[in-house]
Amino acid sequence: MTIRITTIKEMQNLSQTWKTNNKQIGFVPTMGALHDGHLQMIKQSIADNDYTVVSIFVNPLQFGPNEDFDAYPRTMEDDQAQLDALGADYAFYPSVEEMYPKPLELSINVHRMAKVLEGAKRPGHFDGVVTVVNKLFNIIRPDIAYFGKKDAQQLAIVEKMVEEFNQPITIKGMDTIRESDGLAKSSRNIYLTENERQEAVHLYQSLLKAKELYDAGERNSDIIIDEIHTHLTKHTSGTIEEIAVYSYPELVKQTQITGRIFISLAMKFSKARLIDNIIVEEK
Amino acid sequence: MTIRITTIKEMQNLSQTWKTNNKQIGFVPTMGALHDGHLQMIKQSIADNDYTVVSIFVNPLQFGPNEDFDAYPRTMEDDQAQLDALGADYAFYPSVEEMYPKPLELSINVHRMAKVLEGAKRPGHFDGVVTVVNKLFNIIRPDIAYFGKKDAQQLAIVEKMVEEFNQPITIKGMDTIRESDGLAKSSRNIYLTENERQEAVHLYQSLLKAKELYDAGERNSDIIIDEIHTHLTKHTSGTIEEIAVYSYPELVKQTQITGRIFISLAMKFSKARLIDNIIVEEK
Repeated sequence: MTIRITTIKEMQNLSQTWKTNNKQIGFVPTMGALHDGHLQMIKQSIADNDYTVVSIFVNPLQFGPNEDFDAYPRTMEDDQAQLDALGADYAFYPSVEEMYPKPLELSINVHRMAKVLEGAKRPGHFDGVVTVVNKLFNIIRPDIAYFGKKDAQQLAIVEKMVEEFNQPITIKGMDTIRESDGLAKSSRNIYLTENERQEAVHLYQSLLKAKELYDAGERNSDIIIDEIHTHLTKHTSGTIEEIAVYSYPELVKQTQITGRIFISLAMKFSKARLIDNIIVEEK
Repeated sequence: MTIRITTIKEMQNLSQTWKTNNKQIGFVPTMGALHDGHLQMIKQSIADNDYTVVSIFVNPLQFGPNEDFDAYPRTMEDDQAQLDALGADYAFYPSVEEMYPKPLELSINVHRMAKVLEGAKRPGHFDGVVTVVNKLFNIIRPDIAYFGKKDAQQLAIVEKMVEEFNQPITIKGMDTIRESDGLAKSSRNIYLTENERQEAVHLYQSLLKAKELYDAGERNSDIIIDEIHTHLTKHTSGTIEEIAVYSYPELVKQTQITGRIFISLAMKFSKARLIDNIIVEEK
């Protein structure tokens, strides 16, 4: 049985006890609506650490005014059953009131790295992410924290925060988990209509085509982006929001590819806004 | 002998070892040029904790472009001798390069609380303070950290950061230590000319006069501020920058006094800019 903790005080007392007993703490932050992507991270944390804490908190700060905070899937019973089945030790389930009892007097702001890609589309999103992750890190004091590579920009920004804040935490970036047809697992996939769900396989298909070009020696970003654009336009009814090639983890736009980069895309379907990416580098 | 640590890595390893051995860590952040105000805090930390770490770091981020970063007194040999004499366990002495190896991608910003009093005069100052204090807290992981009440606004802002960031740290505000004539000890007192040093006693004298009024029942801030203004104008050659009455620790301007408040002043002499305050509340 996964033990549910709802107060910061209780969570900090546990963490303090573990620290003094020299126990290693693994932490998987989530917004709930757990899917295989989360479950793989939780399994990894259980394997790596003495205690695993999974936080389930839909963080209002990282949603824009026109985004899906209210509609975001909340499946507490189902999440709890999945955590129980996996054997996660603790679920940290604070209320919004517990995390933000008063208006904040301080803010954490992400500059250049949040002004591109998802951050450019979602002003304030990454400020909200680092604000809550910093709080959760101080509450749970993990030795290792797990983040998915599907949210590659988020992973790069969290790693930067840990570096600049000197937090004694190792961040493990976990590979994107996919459906059997290649669609990246996401809590937002449930927003897709049946037809869109069929089309959505082409997000990953287009990235694989891009990777074929890269593997064949193509280093011109525009040519790779065009290939993806053509593929998505042909095979889906969604709106392409962005297709981009950026260095990773520096997040600098690349016109001519050198070093490690990631190729990312964002598409809007009728209700679902989906993102995917692949990270590639010279062998 | 106080052991000198210069790298973040070494400091974090020590802290990690202390944590797993269940040792309590006290931390006194300073910019060096140690005086009795610091020494009292260090003594208190030694009395309260298993290990005491004193950081000595003149933080460029908290100085404005026209402030005294370059001129700020650096008295490393003397500081070290004082720490040795007190029996402080560790001095953390990082270089600027060690603390800020690259331009920062994230910033911590203090809003309303930094827009008044010292913060209004020194834009960016408190952002710089919380940025470095957050780093130092993550490096040293103190159980208790000591800050002087002389910098009352700084103390209130650091306490707010600890609250909002959920840092498991107790902040102890330590009473202002004064020369025998009442002048608050400060590393910047050395900038005073001989004549100004004589006059500077009137900063505290004027605050005592204000307190007399308060104790006699005066609750109108303007009357208290006028009293201080008249006293300082009569007895000093310095320029009054601000005399103010604010709630503490909320830092809201008070025209009619209720609850706990602090009466603060800032004066500019030829080279020295000095601040002082007293915190008063209903018995």
